[in-house]
Amino acid sequence: MKIICSKSNLSKGVNIALKAVPSKTTMPILECILIDATANQIKFVTNDMELGIETMVDGTISEKGMIALDAKIFSEIIRKLPDNDVTIQTDDKLNTLITCEKAKFNIPGKSGEDFVYLPMIERDASITLSQFTLKEMIRQTIFSIAVNENNKLMTGELFEIKDNYLKIVSLDGHRIAIRRMELAKDYEDRKIIVPGKTLNEISKILSGEVDDQVTIYFTKNHILFEFDQTLVLSRLIEGEYFRIDQMLSSDYETKLKINKKEFLSCIDRATLLVREGDKKPIIINITDTSMVLTIDSAMGSMDEEIDIVKEGKDILIGFNPKFLIDALRVIDDEEITIYLVNPKAPCFIKDDKGSYTYLILPVNFSQAR
Amino acid sequence: MKIICSKSNLSKGVNIALKAVPSKTTMPILECILIDATANQIKFVTNDMELGIETMVDGTISEKGMIALDAKIFSEIIRKLPDNDVTIQTDDKLNTLITCEKAKFNIPGKSGEDFVYLPMIERDASITLSQFTLKEMIRQTIFSIAVNENNKLMTGELFEIKDNYLKIVSLDGHRIAIRRMELAKDYEDRKIIVPGKTLNEISKILSGEVDDQVTIYFTKNHILFEFDQTLVLSRLIEGEYFRIDQMLSSDYETKLKINKKEFLSCIDRATLLVREGDKKPIIINITDTSMVLTIDSAMGSMDEEIDIVKEGKDILIGFNPKFLIDALRVIDDEEITIYLVNPKAPCFIKDDKGSYTYLILPVNFSQAR
Repeated sequence: MKIICSKSNLSKGVNIALKAVPSKTTMPILECILIDATANQIKFVTNDMELGIETMVDGTISEKGMIALDAKIFSEIIRKLPDNDVTIQTDDKLNTLITCEKAKFNIPGKSGEDFVYLPMIERDASITLSQFTLKEMIRQTIFSIAVNENNKLMTGELFEIKDNYLKIVSLDGHRIAIRRMELAKDYEDRKIIVPGKTLNEISKILSGEVDDQVTIYFTKNHILFEFDQTLVLSRLIEGEYFRIDQMLSSDYETKLKINKKEFLSCIDRATLLVREGDKKPIIINITDTSMVLTIDSAMGSMDEEIDIVKEGKDILIGFNPKFLIDALRVIDDEEITIYLVNPKAPCFIKDDKGSYTYLILPVNFSQAR
Repeated sequence: MKIICSKSNLSKGVNIALKAVPSKTTMPILECILIDATANQIKFVTNDMELGIETMVDGTISEKGMIALDAKIFSEIIRKLPDNDVTIQTDDKLNTLITCEKAKFNIPGKSGEDFVYLPMIERDASITLSQFTLKEMIRQTIFSIAVNENNKLMTGELFEIKDNYLKIVSLDGHRIAIRRMELAKDYEDRKIIVPGKTLNEISKILSGEVDDQVTIYFTKNHILFEFDQTLVLSRLIEGEYFRIDQMLSSDYETKLKINKKEFLSCIDRATLLVREGDKKPIIINITDTSMVLTIDSAMGSMDEEIDIVKEGKDILIGFNPKFLIDALRVIDDEEITIYLVNPKAPCFIKDDKGSYTYLILPVNFSQAR
């Protein structure tokens, strides 16, 4: 195989492909990037058996062929080469010569035949949306998936297409995050659970531009993202997702509007008195037109008052400050609306259009104190 | 005590004072910043028993007094407060109330009486130079002090004032770094060894501006840096520094001029084939008008040619690439001159003015290979 590509095209391809290289694996071939130039296009392929990536790299093929190169070394070499044309050439013994200007690297390769190709999937049911939207929807929900693997379902996000809307849901047992948006066309109803890891990686590859599109294909066991010159294929999480509808209620006793930035800064200040792992709640006392936040820990105490606009009853309620911070950080609105029922019922932060809903369970602070 | 300062002045003072707060100590009082407002100025004082800092903070004293506050908590609070005036007030029980706008923090303080004050030193012998120069001279030498404490002298830098020149020297047994510059005035000859840690911390505090001055006072056991509104006092390392003059020779067999950036990028590329802890030398083959760098490791091999201007003999010599990289990174010249004698003698990178000299010992690569 002999190919010539610009350093910048190689860099782009490598950076995308790296996202599906496993950090630990019992199959050393998967630590490689497969360079496939057997047809008329140069493709970089990686696969960690759950997530697979295939991306086209612009360049010239002088001699068709393929080679698998250690992803880490190959990416380091590309990154440090001068900004010029790079030639990648292999010999019969799979030795690979990478040259750029006067620099010559010689590294051993592995046979491309040994590589685990991505499964072919049927491109049947699909939806198309802007890369910006998908990236935002992931960012605004991914923080509330569960970190530990005790409940596999909680490590993924529900993608639900229904009545012409895409709804993304994540939950970890203490909170729920929901983002919803209208689709441009009518699609068939569908429910799948996508691994959180896949969504994290795809977020890093998506351009995030409003004008760039991404098409998502669904099969029974896989999801395929197609955009720019890249395909990202992931297994789905099997099982039935939690029925969240019964947890969402629109009844409330207290409704308040508050400046988001002010609320966030205040909680942020309060939490500096809480050591990591220490489960100190932040106590919120809502009376008339003000909200007083209080925190009390071994390091000291803090309180601060914020102006609000309130409807309904006064309430005293405690929260894990991290859950509030996580939700507030991803909301773009300047002013947010919070709905409360009583000190033991979940609070809701949601907008009128129903484009986002964050449910957070309160903390029983009389005990925690 | 009651003082009022702007958040930005407090931040500035805290950031400077933090540099002398020990991370580990058997004396908990030293984990504090002492706020001393007993006289007509607000001073922040910190001391880790080797390094001490005293910095003035602009503000108003409503009630004289002093308090020692946990440095970590205090700095975090200041950092997260809104950008406005901050009031710090203590009561009889040393409880400290920090208020800014509607935010109120309450943290316990410690008696300032228990704090270990900086020793008074005589301000006798001194030199004055620009903060830029001092910061640069430290940056250009500090990388070659020894990291481990086996030889205490090697963990510091020699400051030598002689014949109207300030010379800073560091060495770790494999290399020597020397920076020399002419002083504006005539000073008495003097030789002291300053701890590397002190120089690292002072570098972070110095503005680095050409127009800002720093005055350095010397006593038998201490060095005192005075600049802006800050005093930094450090113990010296006792002992007699190495006689480096006998290691410096101006004889050479090969002299070459090379583009620094090209040389550095080339070594940088070569080292990506070397795993950390692996002692692979880079081999340099100098013939006529070119230099070929070669590296050979379990990961692969690399070679690259660079144009040079050479006087004298051809030579084949090996180096630890890290030592070359460290020196090349801090040299500002576009073109550098390297002097070589034979494959077992040290190489010198130095300029004609004698403002810098980097000595690097070669590696016996026939064995290492």
